[in-house]
Amino acid sequence: MKIKPLGKRILIKVKQSEEKTKGGIILPQTAQEKTQMGIVEAIGDDEAIKVKVGDEIVYDKYAGSQLKVDETEYLLVSIDDVLAVVE
Amino acid sequence: MKIKPLGKRILIKVKQSEEKTKGGIILPQTAQEKTQMGIVEAIGDDEAIKVKVGDEIVYDKYAGSQLKVDETEYLLVSIDDVLAVVE
Amino acid sequence: MKIKPLGKRILIKVKQSEEKTKGGIILPQTAQEKTQMGIVEAIGDDEAIKVKVGDEIVYDKYAGSQLKVDETEYLLVSIDDVLAVVE
Amino acid sequence: MKIKPLGKRILIKVKQSEEKTKGGIILPQTAQEKTQMGIVEAIGDDEAIKVKVGDEIVYDKYAGSQLKVDETEYLLVSIDDVLAVVE
Amino acid sequence: MKIKPLGKRILIKVKQSEEKTKGGIILPQTAQEKTQMGIVEAIGDDEAIKVKVGDEIVYDKYAGSQLKVDETEYLLVSIDDVLAVVE
Amino acid sequence: MKIKPLGKRILIKVKQSEEKTKGGIILPQTAQEKTQMGIVEAIGDDEAIKVKVGDEIVYDKYAGSQLKVDETEYLLVSIDDVLAVVE
Amino acid sequence: MKIKPLGKRILIKVKQSEEKTKGGIILPQTAQEKTQMGIVEAIGDDEAIKVKVGDEIVYDKYAGSQLKVDETEYLLVSIDDVLAVVE
Repeated sequence: MKIKPLGKRILIKVKQSEEKTKGGIILPQTAQEKTQMGIVEAIGDDEAIKVKVGDEIVYDKYAGSQLKVDETEYLLVSIDDVLAVVE
Repeated sequence: MKIKPLGKRILIKVKQSEEKTKGGIILPQTAQEKTQMGIVEAIGDDEAIKVKVGDEIVYDKYAGSQLKVDETEYLLVSIDDVLAVVE
Repeated sequence: MKIKPLGKRILIKVKQSEEKTKGGIILPQTAQEKTQMGIVEAIGDDEAIKVKVGDEIVYDKYAGSQLKVDETEYLLVSIDDVLAVVE
Repeated sequence: MKIKPLGKRILIKVKQSEEKTKGGIILPQTAQEKTQMGIVEAIGDDEAIKVKVGDEIVYDKYAGSQLKVDETEYLLVSIDDVLAVVE
Repeated sequence: MKIKPLGKRILIKVKQSEEKTKGGIILPQTAQEKTQMGIVEAIGDDEAIKVKVGDEIVYDKYAGSQLKVDETEYLLVSIDDVLAVVE
Repeated sequence: MKIKPLGKRILIKVKQSEEKTKGGIILPQTAQEKTQMGIVEAIGDDEAIKVKVGDEIVYDKYAGSQLKVDETEYLLVSIDDVLAVVE
Repeated sequence: MKIKPLGKRILIKVKQSEEKTKGGIILPQTAQEKTQMGIVEAIGDDEAIKVKVGDEIVYDKYAGSQLKVDETEYLLVSIDDVLAVVE
């Protein structure tokens, strides 16, 4: 991975909605529903970041900026838009 | 439960409006009314969180992000959107 | 009463506009007018709360979240939306 | 007077626009104009309040919440919306 | 003058656009242009006020609240909306 | 020059887009483009001001308030809307 | 280069979307996607700036103000709108 997020931002590999998640979680697909899952790929150096590379996280679906590297879809989001960690 | 909320967020199991609540509380169903109830399932580690797992709470209906785990509907909301505890 | 407001919030029993108020106060009923009265039923634990249970208060009509307990209408409002106490 | 404003709020008895003001001041009546005058009837206990009961003040016309006591029109406004004192 | 502005507010006597200004300044009259001039008549007691009574100032045309005293048009504006002094 | 900007404001003489700039810079003329250049004519006394009289600067085109002195167009802008200095 | 950004701003030479990036990154071209890449050309003197001249960065596509110097397109953006560094 060659992307180094700045400050409070983290880089997420987006999970496709058809993928299986840990613990059998299914993400809602209707318009009013707005959480999404991903895997943390890289993190900024801000102390507010409480997740680590490899964590599976739930984030606000409307947050972040898209980025594609070699056909894989990534997202740069602020740690403030990360809602929870799947353990 | 496998979801760990971050910071000031808590995970709530949403109460269906037809369910009986503790103390005979009935939640309004009209469009202008906007409180809803739930049970706290998991909490973040922020000191501002004054509720605990198992509490029945009233929260702002428009707050939070939806999440479904094994057909059960959950919500991730900030503690700032939790209005009261039902004792 | 079984509702415990959190932080700066208080629980109010809403006064119906046809009810008599202390001191002969009549609340305006037109669209541009927006104060309403109620009785404080429970309070959060924030020091900013300068009212006590039993106080008759004037609050901003558009503030707060509705809640019905046994056919009685309540409101959860922030102390910041309470305008005055009727003495 | 039986209304005790909270915090930075003050209670004003609204001056009707046809009333004479101290010093011959006439308030503009067009839509774009937005100052209004009143007499301070009661004040909250915040130190930011630099007016006293009996002062004639100029306030922002769009500020405040209306209240009627025995057919007299009052307004609860924040001291931040009081523009000047008429001396 | 009988108006005492509160806090950071100052009272301005508005200059009519046809009036001559000190230094031959002409104020633009098109819709997109938005500065206006006036003379300081009275000031609040906030230390942020760096103008004095009698100063000719440039202020943001959309700022302030109008007031008429004996047919003369005044404006109550915050010192934050005063852009410059004409020396 | 007879205009003394207050606080963080500076007075700019606007460069006409047909004028030559230092270093051969051409400013874009389409609607989506929004930088503009000018010469600093006077500055306020705030320490945040890091430009000096005579500097050629780039500022946000939508910032500031217009002013005309003897047919010359000026702008009063906050130092926060000055993007860069042309050296 | 003759442009000196002020404060937290940096000057970026915009990468055309058809250009090859380091590490084979392809930037999305649809309307909902909003990251873009560039090379840092100059930086302001604010300590919050954690990038240096020559860095390839990812920034928010809707951020910044455009500037053209000798037919080359530049952007002045706040460091707050820089999302990541490509290493």
